[in-house]
Amino acid sequence: MNLENQRKNVQIAYIGGGSRGWAWGLMSDLAVEQSISGTVKLYDVNYEAAKQNERIGNGLRDREDVVGEWDYEAVPTLKEALTGADFVIISILPGTFQEMKSDVHTPEEYGIYQSVGDTVGPGGMVRALRTIPLFVEIAKEIREHSPNAWVINYTNPMSLCTRTLYEVFPEIKAFGCCHEVFGTQKLLAMMLEDMEGIENVQRSDIKVNVLGINHFTWLDQAAYKNIDLIPLYQKFVDKYYVSGFEGKKEGHWMNDHFASAQRVKFDLFKKFGLIAAAGDRHLAEFMPNTWYLKDREKVKEWKFGLTPVDWRIQKGKELHEKGKRLAQGEESFVLRPTGEEGVLMIKALLGLGDIVSNVNLPNLGQMEGVPQNSVVETNAVFGHNSVQPIVSGGLPAPINNMVLRHIHIQEMTLRAAIDCDRELALRAFTQDPLLSTLSPEEAEELFEKMLFNTKSYLPGWEFEAVKQ
Amino acid sequence: MNLENQRKNVQIAYIGGGSRGWAWGLMSDLAVEQSISGTVKLYDVNYEAAKQNERIGNGLRDREDVVGEWDYEAVPTLKEALTGADFVIISILPGTFQEMKSDVHTPEEYGIYQSVGDTVGPGGMVRALRTIPLFVEIAKEIREHSPNAWVINYTNPMSLCTRTLYEVFPEIKAFGCCHEVFGTQKLLAMMLEDMEGIENVQRSDIKVNVLGINHFTWLDQAAYKNIDLIPLYQKFVDKYYVSGFEGKKEGHWMNDHFASAQRVKFDLFKKFGLIAAAGDRHLAEFMPNTWYLKDREKVKEWKFGLTPVDWRIQKGKELHEKGKRLAQGEESFVLRPTGEEGVLMIKALLGLGDIVSNVNLPNLGQMEGVPQNSVVETNAVFGHNSVQPIVSGGLPAPINNMVLRHIHIQEMTLRAAIDCDRELALRAFTQDPLLSTLSPEEAEELFEKMLFNTKSYLPGWEFEAVKQ
Amino acid sequence: MNLENQRKNVQIAYIGGGSRGWAWGLMSDLAVEQSISGTVKLYDVNYEAAKQNERIGNGLRDREDVVGEWDYEAVPTLKEALTGADFVIISILPGTFQEMKSDVHTPEEYGIYQSVGDTVGPGGMVRALRTIPLFVEIAKEIREHSPNAWVINYTNPMSLCTRTLYEVFPEIKAFGCCHEVFGTQKLLAMMLEDMEGIENVQRSDIKVNVLGINHFTWLDQAAYKNIDLIPLYQKFVDKYYVSGFEGKKEGHWMNDHFASAQRVKFDLFKKFGLIAAAGDRHLAEFMPNTWYLKDREKVKEWKFGLTPVDWRIQKGKELHEKGKRLAQGEESFVLRPTGEEGVLMIKALLGLGDIVSNVNLPNLGQMEGVPQNSVVETNAVFGHNSVQPIVSGGLPAPINNMVLRHIHIQEMTLRAAIDCDRELALRAFTQDPLLSTLSPEEAEELFEKMLFNTKSYLPGWEFEAVKQ
Amino acid sequence: MNLENQRKNVQIAYIGGGSRGWAWGLMSDLAVEQSISGTVKLYDVNYEAAKQNERIGNGLRDREDVVGEWDYEAVPTLKEALTGADFVIISILPGTFQEMKSDVHTPEEYGIYQSVGDTVGPGGMVRALRTIPLFVEIAKEIREHSPNAWVINYTNPMSLCTRTLYEVFPEIKAFGCCHEVFGTQKLLAMMLEDMEGIENVQRSDIKVNVLGINHFTWLDQAAYKNIDLIPLYQKFVDKYYVSGFEGKKEGHWMNDHFASAQRVKFDLFKKFGLIAAAGDRHLAEFMPNTWYLKDREKVKEWKFGLTPVDWRIQKGKELHEKGKRLAQGEESFVLRPTGEEGVLMIKALLGLGDIVSNVNLPNLGQMEGVPQNSVVETNAVFGHNSVQPIVSGGLPAPINNMVLRHIHIQEMTLRAAIDCDRELALRAFTQDPLLSTLSPEEAEELFEKMLFNTKSYLPGWEFEAVKQ
Repeated sequence: MNLENQRKNVQIAYIGGGSRGWAWGLMSDLAVEQSISGTVKLYDVNYEAAKQNERIGNGLRDREDVVGEWDYEAVPTLKEALTGADFVIISILPGTFQEMKSDVHTPEEYGIYQSVGDTVGPGGMVRALRTIPLFVEIAKEIREHSPNAWVINYTNPMSLCTRTLYEVFPEIKAFGCCHEVFGTQKLLAMMLEDMEGIENVQRSDIKVNVLGINHFTWLDQAAYKNIDLIPLYQKFVDKYYVSGFEGKKEGHWMNDHFASAQRVKFDLFKKFGLIAAAGDRHLAEFMPNTWYLKDREKVKEWKFGLTPVDWRIQKGKELHEKGKRLAQGEESFVLRPTGEEGVLMIKALLGLGDIVSNVNLPNLGQMEGVPQNSVVETNAVFGHNSVQPIVSGGLPAPINNMVLRHIHIQEMTLRAAIDCDRELALRAFTQDPLLSTLSPEEAEELFEKMLFNTKSYLPGWEFEAVKQ
Repeated sequence: MNLENQRKNVQIAYIGGGSRGWAWGLMSDLAVEQSISGTVKLYDVNYEAAKQNERIGNGLRDREDVVGEWDYEAVPTLKEALTGADFVIISILPGTFQEMKSDVHTPEEYGIYQSVGDTVGPGGMVRALRTIPLFVEIAKEIREHSPNAWVINYTNPMSLCTRTLYEVFPEIKAFGCCHEVFGTQKLLAMMLEDMEGIENVQRSDIKVNVLGINHFTWLDQAAYKNIDLIPLYQKFVDKYYVSGFEGKKEGHWMNDHFASAQRVKFDLFKKFGLIAAAGDRHLAEFMPNTWYLKDREKVKEWKFGLTPVDWRIQKGKELHEKGKRLAQGEESFVLRPTGEEGVLMIKALLGLGDIVSNVNLPNLGQMEGVPQNSVVETNAVFGHNSVQPIVSGGLPAPINNMVLRHIHIQEMTLRAAIDCDRELALRAFTQDPLLSTLSPEEAEELFEKMLFNTKSYLPGWEFEAVKQ
Repeated sequence: MNLENQRKNVQIAYIGGGSRGWAWGLMSDLAVEQSISGTVKLYDVNYEAAKQNERIGNGLRDREDVVGEWDYEAVPTLKEALTGADFVIISILPGTFQEMKSDVHTPEEYGIYQSVGDTVGPGGMVRALRTIPLFVEIAKEIREHSPNAWVINYTNPMSLCTRTLYEVFPEIKAFGCCHEVFGTQKLLAMMLEDMEGIENVQRSDIKVNVLGINHFTWLDQAAYKNIDLIPLYQKFVDKYYVSGFEGKKEGHWMNDHFASAQRVKFDLFKKFGLIAAAGDRHLAEFMPNTWYLKDREKVKEWKFGLTPVDWRIQKGKELHEKGKRLAQGEESFVLRPTGEEGVLMIKALLGLGDIVSNVNLPNLGQMEGVPQNSVVETNAVFGHNSVQPIVSGGLPAPINNMVLRHIHIQEMTLRAAIDCDRELALRAFTQDPLLSTLSPEEAEELFEKMLFNTKSYLPGWEFEAVKQ
Repeated sequence: MNLENQRKNVQIAYIGGGSRGWAWGLMSDLAVEQSISGTVKLYDVNYEAAKQNERIGNGLRDREDVVGEWDYEAVPTLKEALTGADFVIISILPGTFQEMKSDVHTPEEYGIYQSVGDTVGPGGMVRALRTIPLFVEIAKEIREHSPNAWVINYTNPMSLCTRTLYEVFPEIKAFGCCHEVFGTQKLLAMMLEDMEGIENVQRSDIKVNVLGINHFTWLDQAAYKNIDLIPLYQKFVDKYYVSGFEGKKEGHWMNDHFASAQRVKFDLFKKFGLIAAAGDRHLAEFMPNTWYLKDREKVKEWKFGLTPVDWRIQKGKELHEKGKRLAQGEESFVLRPTGEEGVLMIKALLGLGDIVSNVNLPNLGQMEGVPQNSVVETNAVFGHNSVQPIVSGGLPAPINNMVLRHIHIQEMTLRAAIDCDRELALRAFTQDPLLSTLSPEEAEELFEKMLFNTKSYLPGWEFEAVKQ
């Protein structure tokens, strides 16, 4: 056996290791991967949840259908998780669903609707304000305990989480992963079937050039083998612009909070000429609120859904129950590859095969027209101990102007969060395009309410005793 | 007499030489200046108007109170004006008041108000679309006939006019002059009297650091001798925030379309911490329309005025009559120094004394945080055959984000105007903050109407036969 | 059969199509490649040579061991070659061996030795001065006749040839290929065998990060699977620093003008800490002449060879004879894959499989610390109709300072060649590190002699009737 | 009396306050200045020397010809000097004349001659290595005790001293002053007399645009009133190129170590087209040693002098005696304005009148073609609490390539000094153009010798017990 093609004793630290979504996904992906093995240390503010996942993870080892040999170990401190780690995965929920409820639904009192509320808009920004201090802490611990580890972030708001890691510890080897571009590659594969009758195209065989910031990414080149997909997409949009395109496998936008009919994406193509490469729910939040999120009717017209936090709470409860059953062996863990590329990336970084994938990284030259060091999403080459972004060109001016606006708002948000600078945070908040119809007085009122609602996660900020 | 302190035979080409505002001002300023003399060639699309000004100008020579020796000569072509010129002054009205009427008032049908309508907003942009082709032509003629002349632009939209000159002829020695900063220096002088009892302070003794783009300029330093004016301004704003500050000499905002009570300026200081250095009417147009221009009541509340184009038309007629009387000697030309620095700049460029003044120039490093080559307004040193901007630092992030947005919109407008690219122009138009409350459909409808109304000045653009 | 995996009717224009080195190599590589077929148009200033190659190429079609289906056609004009081309290959000899003789050997009269004389140093610069006008012409023809073709340059001086193409036609899709990095990858493979006993490692499995300018490229990362090769190279250098490393397959430096014992490379590693990734003969020429090229003894000491042009002339004659025999069927063309990646790149650009390879391109962000648009050599991803450089970081300061010096000299050379600016050319010439021991007077004298010797290829430059 | 035109209680900290050159000059300049008064705290590693200067300074107060009211106070610690300071002046001798002797004369053993040896070349670099740690310390103390003070540096190597201050304390308000440009302005005034008969031109009326790094500055514009001096300088050079120009007032190059016949300056103009604006002794050291410093004969031929350190030692002794006499009242202090602009700059910073002067500052955009933050010398506007460099354009490529080389060597030197990185220091040393004729082995040997000779001032560096 050639040792060069295998790596044992890989140490992974999982921050947010009590999670019932991403953590189970990782277990599944590791279980079916032969070439690496080692230990995953699970750290979570909810130690019990990490402990439960330890049991679930270790339960996999002896199964016949499992080829990966991994030990799972819940640890009570970040330090223990990080010490000796080759890789650090960060996938946390900043705050609870209560704070998220305020993020998403308080703005509705002012007529501001959000389909997700975790990236930009009032919800995304307030979420950022409470997430950044957590990431400041994580970055410091990594600098202290595992400065050479590769750090993979899955937490939103992606751009700002990644940006914070580099702000605190500039030498960190971190990147942020997101599957929204994958969804667009899948749509292009479906398009090939719908328009050209070409079936069973793998997502990863759709080659794309990615440009933008997380959840607001764009494709200016797309090809399948020797077929240029841009002119084909033009026809595809013409065909489905009015009706929307539902595809087959995904949920329907009327009953699936995550589904859409791609109408936002099609409209953006008609207006801007590039393929927007994220779900419609995310894309809509980056545009002025008069475009797609003006009110519930407008949202329905554009055939996507607003994801209510109550649904997330309900979903969370179900997973909680499922977790118990899995840990106690009352339910069998189903191996289901996630389609994420995390494990492929880990393998590449270990020298077991290069890959190219889209990733969030500080701009070192990969994207034109946006500031150095702002976190952008483009393709990168993953190889032995290296992630190198690909020089990807720039966005057309009308799109870039929107991207820049968000980048600068995010930069202000970062500074405001680090310095607990309420005035600067308010300035950033007020400039978000989703709030462009509010007066400055309304924006300030909303800001103060939302900030108050998330105050348990804002150490260092001052609040009056009572505020409603 | 020391010849080194004097220059004879200076050749000035005046484009827009039939004007009854700026041209008369120049005559007045030249008349009282001893150290230079020469010829002013007046070129205007309205040759008769230029001819009239020739008569008015030459009528000054023999007056006892006139020390400057200047000949005025109306010429029928740009080429004749430019050939041999040491200086070129550009001060034109792009189109007629009819086009300006559409610029300013058509948006009102959609609830969009503009206090000036010549810089940004829907009016500013459409004005730009018809002005840029004229400046493309002027730049080409200058390249051909007077490539070494210094070119002084007074025409709005200032930033885009100057930007166009450099786009067409990158080696041009052009700069744009505007007196709005002077107005703010005067306000600071009045403040010194009001707050500290210091009287008779000269505007030019108020030293300021200027940053921004024309009509949206900001001061982050201001001093009179050894007095730092920023903390004093803080108190001044506290004192007059609610009531506004009317001063003495200027008109009152209720009956003077150009006056204001500085409330917008004071509010911007409270929100952004810097002194906005332009008239309130201009400043308001750069902000989202929910801030100061939401409706007529809001404008009244902020104590500034909307300048109706009908008033300009009336004013124009009066000047027309006055021009006739002046040319025929029925009325005597009153020498009244304009307070502009144009003549001082010309002297400095001739080597007759350096000055520092604010000026619009491509960014070569004078302003941080905005793209190279975008036209910015900062201080510059004027000396023998040289204008060198001063490295002026950058704006705070919240202000810079707004400035950048406008710069990028202007850049798109430039490209759209040069390439007759309607789609790009529409994108730029839609991103203007004054239109942030419109849906994309409304914005497009308004754009098409306004474009149609100015179509006589849009060679190369296509319009359907009839459009309402 | 799946058409997507194949491309027929590919049109290749070969400029320098009469060559007996690169052209035969291409024929060989195309002959063994199944997935593409089409036509190669051979253009050469020596039409007869192209015609001969046409015969040789077409002679391959019916052979049993040839799977590629290609037609070869000699054409008398550049226009005919370019019209309709999908790819353009440029591989020319600028001037004749007579000019090259002056490039390489005239400086020896001043004690300046060159091992190659085609890249930098006095020889490289004078070669550049006569090559740039040819490339200006080629770029113009491409802009006119095949603006969308992919252009592959093999001609030296590589950086300046590529730079010229982009200077004249900024939208050109051109890149420059060089095999020197491949040689270093092979050395690393030999090192794996020598030091670790790992055999049969493929060059392309040695993953490297490439940084620098052509023939002066450096590796700061190198790995084989999960083995970091940098620490191993350290030991390898320690082992062979004094003796040099001869390897097995390559010629010996004492009797092969192209071989070396890698001592220069080892010395550079000791002094600068990175792996220099080109042949020693090239590397030596970039350093001050006191380092490796001081005199013939020094060269011998460092165990590499000076390549005399007489040898090239002799070699040229032999190939000339061989060409005749091949064309007339007196000798059979031996298929021998070149190890070049040109055909792989063509396939990738056609959408038939992505590759990563090192390539010369204008710097768009792939390399830190050197000016935008200067031509640098780094890795790039080749995919469907796209070549995207990889963000590769920067060189350590001591190396970068040397690289920058050459880049700026090259930039001056480009300007001087385009403007026929003798004074600027002399300035550039004098700043070359190989001439650092000459007085400015000696440098100027040498410059004038060399320029005179190449004057037939310098249209637009003035020379006195008679000169030494 | 108008208080605004005067400032009392100005606090100046003078680091190197025991100096017998610059300190006496400052006393003289302050003594004749009416508008400011206050205290100068003198700090020196030689406390006795500071104490002596205290006595000399305070002795001036009661003299009739002295109008400035200043108290001088020697203090034993940097902290006491800095606390409460409005201005900090740094003018120190790093090490003793013994170290300087090694800097200047040790390289002569290798045939390397230096005319000054305090800026670049082997002497300048080794001087930098021992000066930087001192400036690191000074910067830290300023950050601690007087972060808002304006800091004026006169110490060489100017660029690296200023660079170090900013590296350690980026918010420092420091700039570096040098009179070499003034000397060139005086030369231009002499030229006006010699060529045009215009007499008594003030140096400050010669307006120049300054570009470069300290002691290697260049003028691309120069004017006196409306006279362009560049074409006149062309004629002046033609007239005096061979003979040199001695002028009247300055010493003769044969018997004055600081004088020259400007031949280096004239030769640089002929070769590069710009006016080099520093003394020939400084300029020569920036060029390859084959140009002007090859040997003593060459120096004589170019008519400038090598300044031997023995002469400085002798001069120092004389000043030492003079200091005693002055302090004891045995000799009367002669007021002699220095022609330096330090006091004018202090007044400007206090709001008592703006001036424009050349100054060394980190590049924030004032100079094109060199890295941001490298210390460059250009003009700047001095006003109330502000020093703003003027955007000055860039140097022609051949000059800029030389400037860049020095900037990058200096940047390496800075890092090497801060990190005690001997290998990096050696790399920087070896790349200096004055050493371009040495082999790397010779350069290393010389480096080690010189380093050893200055080892008392290199804390943190390791040296073997005995070294030749």
